[in-house]
Amino acid sequence: MSFTYKRLDKNDVTLLMVDHQAGLLSLVRDFQPDEFKNNVLALADIAKFFELPTILTTSFEDGPNGPMVPELKEAFPNAPYIARPGQINAWDNEEFVQAIKDTGNSQVLIAGVVTDVCVAFPALSAIEAGYDVFVVTDASGTFNPAVRDAAWHRMSQAGVQLMNWFSVASELHRDWRNDIEAFGGILASHLPHYSNLIQSRDAALNES
Amino acid sequence: MSFTYKRLDKNDVTLLMVDHQAGLLSLVRDFQPDEFKNNVLALADIAKFFELPTILTTSFEDGPNGPMVPELKEAFPNAPYIARPGQINAWDNEEFVQAIKDTGNSQVLIAGVVTDVCVAFPALSAIEAGYDVFVVTDASGTFNPAVRDAAWHRMSQAGVQLMNWFSVASELHRDWRNDIEAFGGILASHLPHYSNLIQSRDAALNES
Amino acid sequence: MSFTYKRLDKNDVTLLMVDHQAGLLSLVRDFQPDEFKNNVLALADIAKFFELPTILTTSFEDGPNGPMVPELKEAFPNAPYIARPGQINAWDNEEFVQAIKDTGNSQVLIAGVVTDVCVAFPALSAIEAGYDVFVVTDASGTFNPAVRDAAWHRMSQAGVQLMNWFSVASELHRDWRNDIEAFGGILASHLPHYSNLIQSRDAALNES
Amino acid sequence: MSFTYKRLDKNDVTLLMVDHQAGLLSLVRDFQPDEFKNNVLALADIAKFFELPTILTTSFEDGPNGPMVPELKEAFPNAPYIARPGQINAWDNEEFVQAIKDTGNSQVLIAGVVTDVCVAFPALSAIEAGYDVFVVTDASGTFNPAVRDAAWHRMSQAGVQLMNWFSVASELHRDWRNDIEAFGGILASHLPHYSNLIQSRDAALNES
Amino acid sequence: MSFTYKRLDKNDVTLLMVDHQAGLLSLVRDFQPDEFKNNVLALADIAKFFELPTILTTSFEDGPNGPMVPELKEAFPNAPYIARPGQINAWDNEEFVQAIKDTGNSQVLIAGVVTDVCVAFPALSAIEAGYDVFVVTDASGTFNPAVRDAAWHRMSQAGVQLMNWFSVASELHRDWRNDIEAFGGILASHLPHYSNLIQSRDAALNES
Amino acid sequence: MSFTYKRLDKNDVTLLMVDHQAGLLSLVRDFQPDEFKNNVLALADIAKFFELPTILTTSFEDGPNGPMVPELKEAFPNAPYIARPGQINAWDNEEFVQAIKDTGNSQVLIAGVVTDVCVAFPALSAIEAGYDVFVVTDASGTFNPAVRDAAWHRMSQAGVQLMNWFSVASELHRDWRNDIEAFGGILASHLPHYSNLIQSRDAALNES
Amino acid sequence: MSFTYKRLDKNDVTLLMVDHQAGLLSLVRDFQPDEFKNNVLALADIAKFFELPTILTTSFEDGPNGPMVPELKEAFPNAPYIARPGQINAWDNEEFVQAIKDTGNSQVLIAGVVTDVCVAFPALSAIEAGYDVFVVTDASGTFNPAVRDAAWHRMSQAGVQLMNWFSVASELHRDWRNDIEAFGGILASHLPHYSNLIQSRDAALNES
Amino acid sequence: MSFTYKRLDKNDVTLLMVDHQAGLLSLVRDFQPDEFKNNVLALADIAKFFELPTILTTSFEDGPNGPMVPELKEAFPNAPYIARPGQINAWDNEEFVQAIKDTGNSQVLIAGVVTDVCVAFPALSAIEAGYDVFVVTDASGTFNPAVRDAAWHRMSQAGVQLMNWFSVASELHRDWRNDIEAFGGILASHLPHYSNLIQSRDAALNES
Repeated sequence: MSFTYKRLDKNDVTLLMVDHQAGLLSLVRDFQPDEFKNNVLALADIAKFFELPTILTTSFEDGPNGPMVPELKEAFPNAPYIARPGQINAWDNEEFVQAIKDTGNSQVLIAGVVTDVCVAFPALSAIEAGYDVFVVTDASGTFNPAVRDAAWHRMSQAGVQLMNWFSVASELHRDWRNDIEAFGGILASHLPHYSNLIQSRDAALNES
Repeated sequence: MSFTYKRLDKNDVTLLMVDHQAGLLSLVRDFQPDEFKNNVLALADIAKFFELPTILTTSFEDGPNGPMVPELKEAFPNAPYIARPGQINAWDNEEFVQAIKDTGNSQVLIAGVVTDVCVAFPALSAIEAGYDVFVVTDASGTFNPAVRDAAWHRMSQAGVQLMNWFSVASELHRDWRNDIEAFGGILASHLPHYSNLIQSRDAALNES
Repeated sequence: MSFTYKRLDKNDVTLLMVDHQAGLLSLVRDFQPDEFKNNVLALADIAKFFELPTILTTSFEDGPNGPMVPELKEAFPNAPYIARPGQINAWDNEEFVQAIKDTGNSQVLIAGVVTDVCVAFPALSAIEAGYDVFVVTDASGTFNPAVRDAAWHRMSQAGVQLMNWFSVASELHRDWRNDIEAFGGILASHLPHYSNLIQSRDAALNES
Repeated sequence: MSFTYKRLDKNDVTLLMVDHQAGLLSLVRDFQPDEFKNNVLALADIAKFFELPTILTTSFEDGPNGPMVPELKEAFPNAPYIARPGQINAWDNEEFVQAIKDTGNSQVLIAGVVTDVCVAFPALSAIEAGYDVFVVTDASGTFNPAVRDAAWHRMSQAGVQLMNWFSVASELHRDWRNDIEAFGGILASHLPHYSNLIQSRDAALNES
Repeated sequence: MSFTYKRLDKNDVTLLMVDHQAGLLSLVRDFQPDEFKNNVLALADIAKFFELPTILTTSFEDGPNGPMVPELKEAFPNAPYIARPGQINAWDNEEFVQAIKDTGNSQVLIAGVVTDVCVAFPALSAIEAGYDVFVVTDASGTFNPAVRDAAWHRMSQAGVQLMNWFSVASELHRDWRNDIEAFGGILASHLPHYSNLIQSRDAALNES
Repeated sequence: MSFTYKRLDKNDVTLLMVDHQAGLLSLVRDFQPDEFKNNVLALADIAKFFELPTILTTSFEDGPNGPMVPELKEAFPNAPYIARPGQINAWDNEEFVQAIKDTGNSQVLIAGVVTDVCVAFPALSAIEAGYDVFVVTDASGTFNPAVRDAAWHRMSQAGVQLMNWFSVASELHRDWRNDIEAFGGILASHLPHYSNLIQSRDAALNES
Repeated sequence: MSFTYKRLDKNDVTLLMVDHQAGLLSLVRDFQPDEFKNNVLALADIAKFFELPTILTTSFEDGPNGPMVPELKEAFPNAPYIARPGQINAWDNEEFVQAIKDTGNSQVLIAGVVTDVCVAFPALSAIEAGYDVFVVTDASGTFNPAVRDAAWHRMSQAGVQLMNWFSVASELHRDWRNDIEAFGGILASHLPHYSNLIQSRDAALNES
Repeated sequence: MSFTYKRLDKNDVTLLMVDHQAGLLSLVRDFQPDEFKNNVLALADIAKFFELPTILTTSFEDGPNGPMVPELKEAFPNAPYIARPGQINAWDNEEFVQAIKDTGNSQVLIAGVVTDVCVAFPALSAIEAGYDVFVVTDASGTFNPAVRDAAWHRMSQAGVQLMNWFSVASELHRDWRNDIEAFGGILASHLPHYSNLIQSRDAALNES
């Protein structure tokens, strides 16, 4: 029974940022607030670095779910922005699906809030539609770890590949030599200890 | 290898509430008491909102397992109520299986106490009988998280889809516009922070 | 070195509910949302049962901190309600301190959000002012358990007595016979497992 | 793709108790000592109740691994007892495999110490040999939860069904009416809260 | 500032077992059920071994709180048994206080359910009355660890000494030579790993 | 026994930032990296906002302990910077103690890495020297929570007040009206959920 | 559907130690530092004992990732050492893949830092290339347990077998009699409690 | 109320290593085995480095408690070694107390197993006898964290200072310049990440 390693390919993947809205974010409790914010912004920086086609969407943003967080709007000023009038599963919105098709890519990379709904539903729909689906688990949040675990089981069972922002970055980059400076800079700005390593190293280099 | 996303369909699903009895509930320790009560009642409110055919059942209720909690009886006054004389797996009770068949639905949604027995056994039987099976993990409880995890592995291995009450509600509702007021009301009454969002928003709307 | 057991006395204690506001509540992460809501409402029911003089106060409620949650306003419709124009420590508000003095009581019982500020600051001020101070730890919330622990150390060091809503209720009630029905009813409505015990017992009584 | 629910059958299952030795037990740290001892003895009581063919085995017991705990020897005085001279995987011992074959059963139920070795190895061998394999996860222990989780993944991936002692008991018993007194007695002696329920109920019955 | 080490003295201490009732025990969730039962029975065995004067008491046992667990009644058949008609703080019951006085001891050792009420209240009263007070923390249980921590702060602040059953046993025994066999037997029966050590040792002694 | 509430006073407090060095920071594991970085930078922003006299110091920075993190150097370009040649307890360095004396303040506020050494040692020395000492617990880190707890016990025992950056900010500010915009901005930039509240509120205000 | 138990075979397995570099190790936080170091060195000792062909590799070691830890270089002085010039997935380095091919083995056993990248990527590539792949989960580390769990899901989904160093050792050894002394010595040096068992046993043997 | 900072003084402190015996160590479960072993050996290395007078003692070592671990005997070949014939509290052994007096020191530093007995009892006795007492919390272990916390409360209440091995080392050393090489070497051998820092630094120094 042969296995094909479906790797993220920067030329064949579309990023979907689903429902990172100010109200919904207050429901996220499977990650600490600082950590989660950092993870989402790290993913955004990665997408910009690789110039991934990115699609933003929100759910019922004129109500308590609230507006998309401004950092994401600013990060992707030219991305398709689909404020869904009511569909909970973004894949039920034709404009959203069409925007994905328009990129021509066969892979989708999804992050969103909350994991068990706004991520899991379009992830399962995308698998059904024939896409290779990757979920950024640590840029997706929900009510508590037990809810997250159930959602991970459901998605993994369907063939979704569960990743984290750092492995997404690494799988896209492939080789440090493609751009050591810029890539290292993204890591340093989102991994405090990687930044510490660089500072310690620079201090030692200067010293000698 | 094609994948079909089996979605909960409010016109094709039957809810099974299994053994939420006063005595058995005292054994549940993988959720906090307040949280678990809230989850079970949230599921009941969702079922009523979508008018899902619902079947109640208990196990040996004239002994220490105790009576079904009154909130569920009150929530579903007209539901078939099957006090099983002794069968541990509800699916071994013909009346119970017949009641499910009578609904004509192809999906079953199960919650119960305890997860590893009262939920897992009928879930596996229902898969075998050809139903699409969804388990409401956070309205089902058991002795401790390690027991829960083993039961989740066993059910997931067999094809059961693990969900939580919030994703059940969302997958059934499909679109906020179907009834924003009532659906939002259910969320607000069972998610304190969603209620807070609404109050903060109303305050701001009134202020301006 | 003699020790005096300062017990809560229903005829000598004033309850201070500090800053349970919709916005601030979204910051509370040392308790689960359902659990915390239940604890706060249990404390309110206890105060009403014992007819404790109660004072409500909010901090800067016309901004993001948001309005006081409606359940508390409804529970104490005639309580002094002091919307502080800016003072963070409620004790810096003269009207608040005067309202406490007006009760003539020598004990204060404080709950609030967030524990390390809205509770700890007036608790320390009240100790300094000569009151016996009791904090309801589980009806007070903050960012995470580490912050809570530090605040508890600070308050305990100053002589504050740390309690929880159930021990507050019990210390005020003194004797079940004072009103078994009503007191038991409060416990049952806020302790799901106490309610289960009553139901199991009633079933057994009916059976025999 | 049809699914067959392979249920434990008291007439077709053999219990394997693998390496519950005094020395090895001191390595178990994914369960608390009291809890683990209780789980193992509960499983033994269940096996005796259902008169399951049971096979005991130990690994290198004349060294630091130590002797089998006396409670198990006493529980199964007539069971085949195979002190393996050196094989780590019990399935590599012909006498052990033959003893299983001699029972004529097609299901094996395994508990042991440590989970990742003494349980996982024979479990995988038994699957390969065509048996239906069930592991009693909470009567099997190992170094820490991370090791346990990895072992569970490996076994589940191979088709092992992960259960706990309570679900084993329930799946074997099928119906409370088969023997309410004896079965309830086993539960009460190993589930303190089940015993409490019985006592509370008896008190209420006596009272009325 | 001189310090006097107040040690438990088997000739000067009275054990108070407060409200270990079947119903109340179902509320205990800061210890696992098996562990807690073991701790309470270990304390009982210790008290019997040292022939400590022991007083049993219950709170409102004809209601949902339920009867005292039978193991304790059996352990102390001749102990004063004070079924309090209503007083929550056992120290408010004159008969209870008199029973303590009658022992003539200056130390009290308290265990009970729940820690924050049934233990903390009489502990503080006993300190006020001039007794040296020791609480057996692991034979006392309550709703969750946060409630326990607050109660520990309150009691420690008042001068209560917090101990566990094993340190109680050791401080009472003083010297292994006073009775190695019997004392070791109590440890072995309540500490599974101590029993394992003895078995491993015996095996090695027999081997050589 | 009267109690004086020693409140942080922005006109009488000196901030000591001790050994936040790139190498030492890699040892901190009682907080998550993102969270800890955020806490330290929040404290720096608060100190700048209140223009607190601030003293930076490092320990043996030409070795593996590494350089002070650049963000702190940039935040306090004019602060005394004392690179200690070897003293582990900063209070053993005369220049450091003199710098504190030079501020003329009677309160010191300390944060550092690691808590049990670089914070606890000068905190105890400062108490001995007559200062009122406040430790910012969540801008101080160490190897693991057990080490932290022991250090907190030691400091609290000596009279150190344990606070967190948010309560420090609030106790210094006293009144929102002193500068709502700037103070709220600091909170929003370091508390993601406070920022979310502001965005949700602004959206609602704009909408109406 | 037949299952083949693919067992580690000491004559057919190649060990890959990937990126255990001084800098990267400071990022590992899903294991405690002492525990992780012990696990990695245990694995090295096992590989040396069984004389497994071993391949060392590093990623961009002249930058902040740092040098391979010296213990591993010393343990495998003659192993192929491939300092990858930039490839993140070691399998993208032809020299690395060729070194594996040169061993002629069909199984690869992988440990590395970080799990989600340096382990998961070559593990998936090796599966695709037709190898049987085993990952040593506790000699592989990453940022936190949530990241680890997602990586385990991804690898398990692809057919990777998740093991720990102790089960690796046991599956390779097969039979204690192959070399009791040496094998026991490795266990004792990396499992403190196994060493304790041996010492207790030796003491008892000497005593009698 | 003046406070004197009692600092560990290498010329005035005696180390007491109490009951680190092979059998008793198997009872320790508030630390992981690798971590605890490392902590104890780190403390031994520190004591040797500072040439602290050290006293070893064991409790009933010819029974299941087992022999003192050989590493400690080897570390302190010339230390007084007091195998107590039966006294549980080492302070009840006259020889032990005399050995401490003979050192002429006024401070004692205690580590042992188990914390609540073998450490707490002599710690309280030593306080009573007028010594300044410091406990090395992470080189002392017991059954679980709840038992540890109670013991810490009891000791802290009596004036014991709770420290960890790293702060002990640092408080004794006072100044890095006293011996950078040797002191740094001890840290590196017991703190894997400190070792990593040194290696990374050396690599950078060599590179430039």
